[in-house]
Amino acid sequence: MVENKYSLKIGVLGTGIVAQTIGAALIELGHEVKMGSRTSKNEKALAFVEKYKDRGASNGTFEEAAAFHEITFNCVKGEHVLEALSLTNGALYDKLLIDVSNPLDFSKGMPPSLIPALSNTNSLGEEIQRLYPDTLVVKTLNTMWSGLMVNPNLIGDGNHVNYICGNRYEGKFITRDLLKQFGWKDENLIDLGDITNARATEAILPIWLRLYGVRKNGAFNFQIVG
Amino acid sequence: MVENKYSLKIGVLGTGIVAQTIGAALIELGHEVKMGSRTSKNEKALAFVEKYKDRGASNGTFEEAAAFHEITFNCVKGEHVLEALSLTNGALYDKLLIDVSNPLDFSKGMPPSLIPALSNTNSLGEEIQRLYPDTLVVKTLNTMWSGLMVNPNLIGDGNHVNYICGNRYEGKFITRDLLKQFGWKDENLIDLGDITNARATEAILPIWLRLYGVRKNGAFNFQIVG
Repeated sequence: MVENKYSLKIGVLGTGIVAQTIGAALIELGHEVKMGSRTSKNEKALAFVEKYKDRGASNGTFEEAAAFHEITFNCVKGEHVLEALSLTNGALYDKLLIDVSNPLDFSKGMPPSLIPALSNTNSLGEEIQRLYPDTLVVKTLNTMWSGLMVNPNLIGDGNHVNYICGNRYEGKFITRDLLKQFGWKDENLIDLGDITNARATEAILPIWLRLYGVRKNGAFNFQIVG
Repeated sequence: MVENKYSLKIGVLGTGIVAQTIGAALIELGHEVKMGSRTSKNEKALAFVEKYKDRGASNGTFEEAAAFHEITFNCVKGEHVLEALSLTNGALYDKLLIDVSNPLDFSKGMPPSLIPALSNTNSLGEEIQRLYPDTLVVKTLNTMWSGLMVNPNLIGDGNHVNYICGNRYEGKFITRDLLKQFGWKDENLIDLGDITNARATEAILPIWLRLYGVRKNGAFNFQIVG
């Protein structure tokens, strides 16, 4: 067990690179992390637990991770998010869900487009909020490479932006605190307003993906000038 | 008549703030500008000509502006672009069309979304190229406030980005030269590749519009860090 009076119990849904990166960063910060997946025998989740088992890491189903405590990161691949969340069986009720996912559509060629029903006049963030009205959904960190999510100081002295949006102040307040633990500066965390702003931040993916194609390296982000 | 060996004859389609801003900047640079609209009696076009009549400004129909010479800026409001171009009656054949427009959809509330048929897996830039296959369509300048398009040094010593995309090198070469005349630095002009990349640059509008809503001022743009 981690001895840290600020230690939080945080669920992380997903086992991919984003989930592994955020999970590891939370452990490094002294928090306890339960990684959730479809089954509790997921090999990538078990490898995560093996690596950090003496530092508060555990794993379980999506439901068990969502039920772990008050805060859950959604790091599931966009196209599987709604199904994964349906497997939490009410465990997200009244919880904070920090949604890092993007509704990428890989079915129409590369780079991926956005899932039509979850973009433009809708978004994955909004859809989650609509389906889970008693969950505090906060969208953030979805506009950059995972390495920067938890270590913004890797480039440009950390002076590049991360957007936050969500319907309720409490959720954004707690999210902002966690982001600052990752190294984000207050002035680079832009609160756009309610969760409908996820339409805009998820729509950054097309230009991000094309710049990644040009640069061949994900260690970049945007700053606002002016 | 302007005495300048580099003087070009440039058509500008549209009479709104973007057309007026680009038209005026081209005049200041010593080029001749013909502003095109539905009729040659458009009041905003006539006011432009009145202001710059001794410096190479004229006006006419969309067709006359497109036929003026080799280069045409498309500054028509997105939802009217395809109709406006249809009125050029072949005058865009083998010409360079620098497309500054965005497929904004004002029919579904504010801030506007993107016209579904012209976004995500399509774009206005691509649609124009598809409809006018013998025109060199180059998409650029569509991701910022008009004041910055022609005066990037207004903020941040001009260090913020402008994307360029288009299928043919010649078109992008000439466009890049004009952009540098406006004050853009070579290193901030990012060539993304072919015109399908307009999907990504047009998709920047949602975040731009929301940031504008937060900042209440259009004098900002994005820079890439990393």
